[in-house]
Amino acid sequence: MKNSNERVAYFNGKIVPESEVMIPFRDRSFKYGDGVFDMTRTFGHKIFKLEEHIDRFYDSLSYVKINPGINKNEMIDQTMNVLNANLPLIDKNDDYWVGQRVSRGVDFVGGDMWDTDGGPNLIIECMPLPLKPRAKLYKDGMDVIIPSVRRIPTESLSPRVKTHNYLNLIMGDLEAKAQNPDAWAILLDNRGFITEGIGSNFFSVKNGTIYTPSEQFVLGGISRETTIELAKKLDIPLIVKDIDLYDALTADEIFLTSTSLCICGVRTIQGREVNSKKIPGPITKALMDAYVDYVEYDWIGQYLRQLD
Amino acid sequence: MKNSNERVAYFNGKIVPESEVMIPFRDRSFKYGDGVFDMTRTFGHKIFKLEEHIDRFYDSLSYVKINPGINKNEMIDQTMNVLNANLPLIDKNDDYWVGQRVSRGVDFVGGDMWDTDGGPNLIIECMPLPLKPRAKLYKDGMDVIIPSVRRIPTESLSPRVKTHNYLNLIMGDLEAKAQNPDAWAILLDNRGFITEGIGSNFFSVKNGTIYTPSEQFVLGGISRETTIELAKKLDIPLIVKDIDLYDALTADEIFLTSTSLCICGVRTIQGREVNSKKIPGPITKALMDAYVDYVEYDWIGQYLRQLD
Amino acid sequence: MKNSNERVAYFNGKIVPESEVMIPFRDRSFKYGDGVFDMTRTFGHKIFKLEEHIDRFYDSLSYVKINPGINKNEMIDQTMNVLNANLPLIDKNDDYWVGQRVSRGVDFVGGDMWDTDGGPNLIIECMPLPLKPRAKLYKDGMDVIIPSVRRIPTESLSPRVKTHNYLNLIMGDLEAKAQNPDAWAILLDNRGFITEGIGSNFFSVKNGTIYTPSEQFVLGGISRETTIELAKKLDIPLIVKDIDLYDALTADEIFLTSTSLCICGVRTIQGREVNSKKIPGPITKALMDAYVDYVEYDWIGQYLRQLD
Amino acid sequence: MKNSNERVAYFNGKIVPESEVMIPFRDRSFKYGDGVFDMTRTFGHKIFKLEEHIDRFYDSLSYVKINPGINKNEMIDQTMNVLNANLPLIDKNDDYWVGQRVSRGVDFVGGDMWDTDGGPNLIIECMPLPLKPRAKLYKDGMDVIIPSVRRIPTESLSPRVKTHNYLNLIMGDLEAKAQNPDAWAILLDNRGFITEGIGSNFFSVKNGTIYTPSEQFVLGGISRETTIELAKKLDIPLIVKDIDLYDALTADEIFLTSTSLCICGVRTIQGREVNSKKIPGPITKALMDAYVDYVEYDWIGQYLRQLD
Amino acid sequence: MKNSNERVAYFNGKIVPESEVMIPFRDRSFKYGDGVFDMTRTFGHKIFKLEEHIDRFYDSLSYVKINPGINKNEMIDQTMNVLNANLPLIDKNDDYWVGQRVSRGVDFVGGDMWDTDGGPNLIIECMPLPLKPRAKLYKDGMDVIIPSVRRIPTESLSPRVKTHNYLNLIMGDLEAKAQNPDAWAILLDNRGFITEGIGSNFFSVKNGTIYTPSEQFVLGGISRETTIELAKKLDIPLIVKDIDLYDALTADEIFLTSTSLCICGVRTIQGREVNSKKIPGPITKALMDAYVDYVEYDWIGQYLRQLD
Amino acid sequence: MKNSNERVAYFNGKIVPESEVMIPFRDRSFKYGDGVFDMTRTFGHKIFKLEEHIDRFYDSLSYVKINPGINKNEMIDQTMNVLNANLPLIDKNDDYWVGQRVSRGVDFVGGDMWDTDGGPNLIIECMPLPLKPRAKLYKDGMDVIIPSVRRIPTESLSPRVKTHNYLNLIMGDLEAKAQNPDAWAILLDNRGFITEGIGSNFFSVKNGTIYTPSEQFVLGGISRETTIELAKKLDIPLIVKDIDLYDALTADEIFLTSTSLCICGVRTIQGREVNSKKIPGPITKALMDAYVDYVEYDWIGQYLRQLD
Repeated sequence: MKNSNERVAYFNGKIVPESEVMIPFRDRSFKYGDGVFDMTRTFGHKIFKLEEHIDRFYDSLSYVKINPGINKNEMIDQTMNVLNANLPLIDKNDDYWVGQRVSRGVDFVGGDMWDTDGGPNLIIECMPLPLKPRAKLYKDGMDVIIPSVRRIPTESLSPRVKTHNYLNLIMGDLEAKAQNPDAWAILLDNRGFITEGIGSNFFSVKNGTIYTPSEQFVLGGISRETTIELAKKLDIPLIVKDIDLYDALTADEIFLTSTSLCICGVRTIQGREVNSKKIPGPITKALMDAYVDYVEYDWIGQYLRQLD
Repeated sequence: MKNSNERVAYFNGKIVPESEVMIPFRDRSFKYGDGVFDMTRTFGHKIFKLEEHIDRFYDSLSYVKINPGINKNEMIDQTMNVLNANLPLIDKNDDYWVGQRVSRGVDFVGGDMWDTDGGPNLIIECMPLPLKPRAKLYKDGMDVIIPSVRRIPTESLSPRVKTHNYLNLIMGDLEAKAQNPDAWAILLDNRGFITEGIGSNFFSVKNGTIYTPSEQFVLGGISRETTIELAKKLDIPLIVKDIDLYDALTADEIFLTSTSLCICGVRTIQGREVNSKKIPGPITKALMDAYVDYVEYDWIGQYLRQLD
Repeated sequence: MKNSNERVAYFNGKIVPESEVMIPFRDRSFKYGDGVFDMTRTFGHKIFKLEEHIDRFYDSLSYVKINPGINKNEMIDQTMNVLNANLPLIDKNDDYWVGQRVSRGVDFVGGDMWDTDGGPNLIIECMPLPLKPRAKLYKDGMDVIIPSVRRIPTESLSPRVKTHNYLNLIMGDLEAKAQNPDAWAILLDNRGFITEGIGSNFFSVKNGTIYTPSEQFVLGGISRETTIELAKKLDIPLIVKDIDLYDALTADEIFLTSTSLCICGVRTIQGREVNSKKIPGPITKALMDAYVDYVEYDWIGQYLRQLD
Repeated sequence: MKNSNERVAYFNGKIVPESEVMIPFRDRSFKYGDGVFDMTRTFGHKIFKLEEHIDRFYDSLSYVKINPGINKNEMIDQTMNVLNANLPLIDKNDDYWVGQRVSRGVDFVGGDMWDTDGGPNLIIECMPLPLKPRAKLYKDGMDVIIPSVRRIPTESLSPRVKTHNYLNLIMGDLEAKAQNPDAWAILLDNRGFITEGIGSNFFSVKNGTIYTPSEQFVLGGISRETTIELAKKLDIPLIVKDIDLYDALTADEIFLTSTSLCICGVRTIQGREVNSKKIPGPITKALMDAYVDYVEYDWIGQYLRQLD
Repeated sequence: MKNSNERVAYFNGKIVPESEVMIPFRDRSFKYGDGVFDMTRTFGHKIFKLEEHIDRFYDSLSYVKINPGINKNEMIDQTMNVLNANLPLIDKNDDYWVGQRVSRGVDFVGGDMWDTDGGPNLIIECMPLPLKPRAKLYKDGMDVIIPSVRRIPTESLSPRVKTHNYLNLIMGDLEAKAQNPDAWAILLDNRGFITEGIGSNFFSVKNGTIYTPSEQFVLGGISRETTIELAKKLDIPLIVKDIDLYDALTADEIFLTSTSLCICGVRTIQGREVNSKKIPGPITKALMDAYVDYVEYDWIGQYLRQLD
Repeated sequence: MKNSNERVAYFNGKIVPESEVMIPFRDRSFKYGDGVFDMTRTFGHKIFKLEEHIDRFYDSLSYVKINPGINKNEMIDQTMNVLNANLPLIDKNDDYWVGQRVSRGVDFVGGDMWDTDGGPNLIIECMPLPLKPRAKLYKDGMDVIIPSVRRIPTESLSPRVKTHNYLNLIMGDLEAKAQNPDAWAILLDNRGFITEGIGSNFFSVKNGTIYTPSEQFVLGGISRETTIELAKKLDIPLIVKDIDLYDALTADEIFLTSTSLCICGVRTIQGREVNSKKIPGPITKALMDAYVDYVEYDWIGQYLRQLD
């Protein structure tokens, strides 16, 4: 019996209350993180670039060789079904994360490694965006700490795939938050160049040019792609290159992008204040405004209203 | 209502039927592999080196900074309770894997990263050993393939911790099994030295001396430790060192150790036959026999009887 | 006395029957692989881009500091002499590999390292292309396996030089062929990015764009260069970048280029089927057709006729 | 018709004059360095540790997967036959290098890669030691230069195998000899630790302790092994460890070992004089004398007499 | 009392004779190299791109987190004051290096690390260019040696900052000069690609195209930037990429750029002659001439006149 | 005119008041950190292991190829002269750091690189130990932070030499102190293993065994050596090995050693509390007490008395 205020989710073919999406503990994603996901969001209750996310999701599935059982169109349809069922449950000023997750399934007891009992588990979910806890980032800027932990290299596991294996990024974030509970970790790769944080991409600005790491070393987020397009539209030069600590410590502006943050200015990096007097700096601000125009929704105001 | 033949598990303070150990899909171990585990086995229904496994388990918990909520003694007691409740359900010729798993818990909806809703999820479980599918390995030997994927380096995530992040090893195993469905993957580290497979350690024998990689680059299994002790007892020289493909391709004997396998001889490495005419080779066989004596149970016979 | 059906070769100033090109066993290329070579082919009995190959050959000679004793023009003239003498020996449907090889010469007995007895040995040769054994690749596609062995890094020996030191590539190929005798090995570099195989370059296609590794990490073949030009001519975007396993496992199409293959579609990579339903995929096919036009010879038909 | 002063060699089953050991130019060792070898020497016309060399030779053959066609005992017998036939040709004060070489054989024309036409080519040879050109090294000491080129790493090709692929070492030696024609190159590995030169191993002495690099990163020569045994016999502490430039530049003594050199003192390293006033230093000298005792032949005198 | 021929320098707020710029021995730049600098030059007594140098200097100061106490405009003004005071002291045919240096200051005795006693020490200085000792380089070309020492990697200390820590480059230069006292060292990075020398950048020319390493791995000198601009102005293609030994050993021309050298042709690299018959080669010469035009001063003649 | 309370120092042959040890700003150690040093301390006014320090100092000098102008015995004598002159100036409860520094000297104006004007500058100095600011570390324990910056690798500059190039360690310390002004930075090497901090060595304790990194990757301090000897004397097993974050985060005890600290317990590592309830832990305490006995001076009490 569904509580009328409870969100629903798609779970292996049915739309059910979230509380009924329960995973057997021998599911390989619980035991091994053996699954992949993708995640977009709504802006003013309208979903953002769902097709692009689903394309990336199926590439992630190919990489780990999991067949989700349904095709891209069905995945899109079910995602919209879940979203539409859940939208009435939130305020018009709120928005959702909307995502898909697939695990390889439950290990077969008595079978050997790779024997699964029933095939992949597929979930499509909505989750309210954490507008309130993140609102202050838009007023004050973010604190970024670069931990000692290095991003997993390509030859071990592609950083470009949105898998359920996040311990590398979590270990980095634990280091950052041990120093400053509000800090966001951004990891270096094993050459010492900046990569990414948990779900966030890094940009710096110097002398009017924007820089961001190459997609070969990070998960090239859709928000990162959008930002690159917006820079082009605004005629601000943007160069994709290896970014090191020198770039970071001498940048005029730094900002992160992510599905939920869109674009958010960075106040301190490795405990030092970023050069630009104001956070966000002028180029960051221009991109944020362009992002608002692009999605036709004032997500900046949406965040800042939470501070009232 | 518990089916009288159903195994039980410990789940957050209670012993319940396994089918009731259901994990909310927002559990961080499902979403991120953000958990750790350990696993021992029984020999003739007697548990093996439980204290050592629990010590290692608490070190894994320290590394990822998860507090399981109960101390080592309680963990041991509850493990024995679960085991004792489950032993009547298997034949006297069968045995169990016995393990503990802890996830960081369920992400709090509306909270930000690291806010968990209810704290860690702790499970203690038994699973019958896959004696039948693995029995042929004791008759014919194992096939080992070294994939192109490299083991995650220390500076990204310690390979010495038994976490729920197995995709690196799984990607390696996918490569191996794509070539030979019966093959076991053993990965190299980023310097080109042999590390380990999914839960298994590597040993080679050359001119009467045994070699195995250093514990700094692999999860130093309890079975590996036991094998090192047995070599000492048998007065067979054993050297811990970096092992490369040359060592592997020119070895007289190769064997793997793991909780379930104990010690099992390797027949082919990278598609080539290992030198020793017979599998297992003489030193492997001597160690296997010593292992039987040590645990006072003929686990070799236990495997081989499955072939009848 | 020359058998009238025997091919000839240039050997240190003379054109002689191939059976008379015998190398003293103390030649440094036999003992150390201390030599370099280059290799082009004929299309319908017309030689392909000989000047470009000779330019590259002299760069290889510079790198290893061997003076071949004759200049580029003489090298070209003698190559044409050898080819013209050999063309009558093959069917009009067959074609030749045409190559030059120089070793540093024979080690002087009683002298020390680097004392050579008589200077470099220079050979210019023709060899019929292996049309028949390779014909099925054009019908079914190629199987590519990425071995555990990594391509030799730049700081040890430039992968950009066509030397007589092929054991690194051969060790990779041995791994691949141990799993599948028809497989072609493509090696990763020590960062985990795709490089090349024995004489072949790698291309992938995704969403209408072609990708190939940078020339700094591979021997940039003349066929690779030709393919890049043809993509330009066909207005298909082509990006030179680091390609990882994620790119390879999620590619729409993959193909290899080499002197003999020109362009050939890949059916499986690391045991998994490439996405494109048909092999070769549409962009590969367009490039192959453009290659036929470019060389004014239907080498695809030449291969496929071997299957009749 | 054999010249009565001409040395003989074993060549694929027969003992023939050396001038008849001629290799077809399509032999894979000429084209690719696709072969392996081993090399010992005589002391006063008696062969040194032939069995150890043959054991190592067969391990090299295993690594590259070449079957030489005859077993170890036949290899030893034929080696002795070749040596015995050649010994009468040199002065009693001279000695021989005695070695075995196997290539994978001649590429089959019209076949594809790996089709060979007739199987491996096996040669057993003697070559007079270069006593005269090297004699001054025993009077003055050796000059060692560390080039910019790094030794090929394990993950590309095992440095522990005596293959016919020497271009990496040759490129290093070319750099050294361009600066000083008498210099011997010793290469660093890709971590910056000292490895080896062409056929020579490196030792340093500091405060009475001898150091030498680990066998995992170099070809552990038989002379190196002999030297380690002699240090033990003389009760001089010897530690196998990673040796860096600091160790080299601050060493009290440095010496190289090789089949032909046995042990020879180093005068300068990277253009700087080694600390010990006298070359060889006292510990080097003690080891050299012990080596003379061990082989029961005054090879030091043998070299030095060449200076008269 | 100032000697009327003595140069002056700015020292912590005052312009004083150079002999009065004495640093307490506990200054952190003396003890730790804990300082940064920048350096431009005059052409015909006119200062070159001072603003660009000062911008870079303040970025260096940001990186090491030293506040120099004065702003960019004051730094420029004081630099001009020092220069103007010193210009009368040199011949009209001579020119100056003009530079700024800041150390973190003197360690406080009795304090702990980072307590400084009086804040940063700031010096602005002029030094006559070494026209005479370097003049022959313009007649004969430079000798470049690549030492075994690798440039410090980004993850340890950014090579892009002009710090007072030069021992890495000095160790490389010691190696080069031990072989050839006139040689200039150019170091490889830890991947084996060419970086830079002490204050100099590397360029190669092949088939009419100029190549130079990426600014991420070297200190991108102002002279390097000027050269890149001049190549553009002259319509000579210039590609920024990883340059390896193969590029260097097969280049048509090689030249270095630096503040003092501007552009100077290289005669030998690693002991081998560069291909171009004449030094400087035609493209190097064209760039040199364009550099003369650009700075409106014949610095080539200035150097060459020293040889008279 | 010397202030009667002013310490003296040895400066190029004379003992002078410290305020007269002024270095020309063109000294290469000021400009490039081109110098080396060593540092011991007194215990109860008696100097500690001076000979060992001087031996290491001369090895450092050899490495950078600077001749200090005086031999070891003179260096020792002058050190004692400086110390004896300064001892009357401190309280009997205080102690001195006692060190030697040599720079390569002053760059010759008008000369080229490496021309020095007057040879090396040699200083012997005393500095009161910072007992007061460090006293609390003995009561509360130290906070260790591992920064993102990696220790300079061997192939760039030997970490085993006490040079005047400290910016790599200083950049790491800046990161640590930006998070916690009392924190001490301990850097990882480029493989992710723990090395050292500014002048301090790292030890961990687990299950009764002590671990410390190998001397090949750190400056093996005299205090580290002393600690190793004391562990042996106390019969506590001590293993030199690669230590990773897992070792650090699961250690029972951690302590640092340095000339001034001798041995000091660590309270937190990377923001997490070390396991041992009490700081220092029992094995750390036993070693500290043994250190007091060894030097026959209660330096622990000396520190703690500063807190009164």
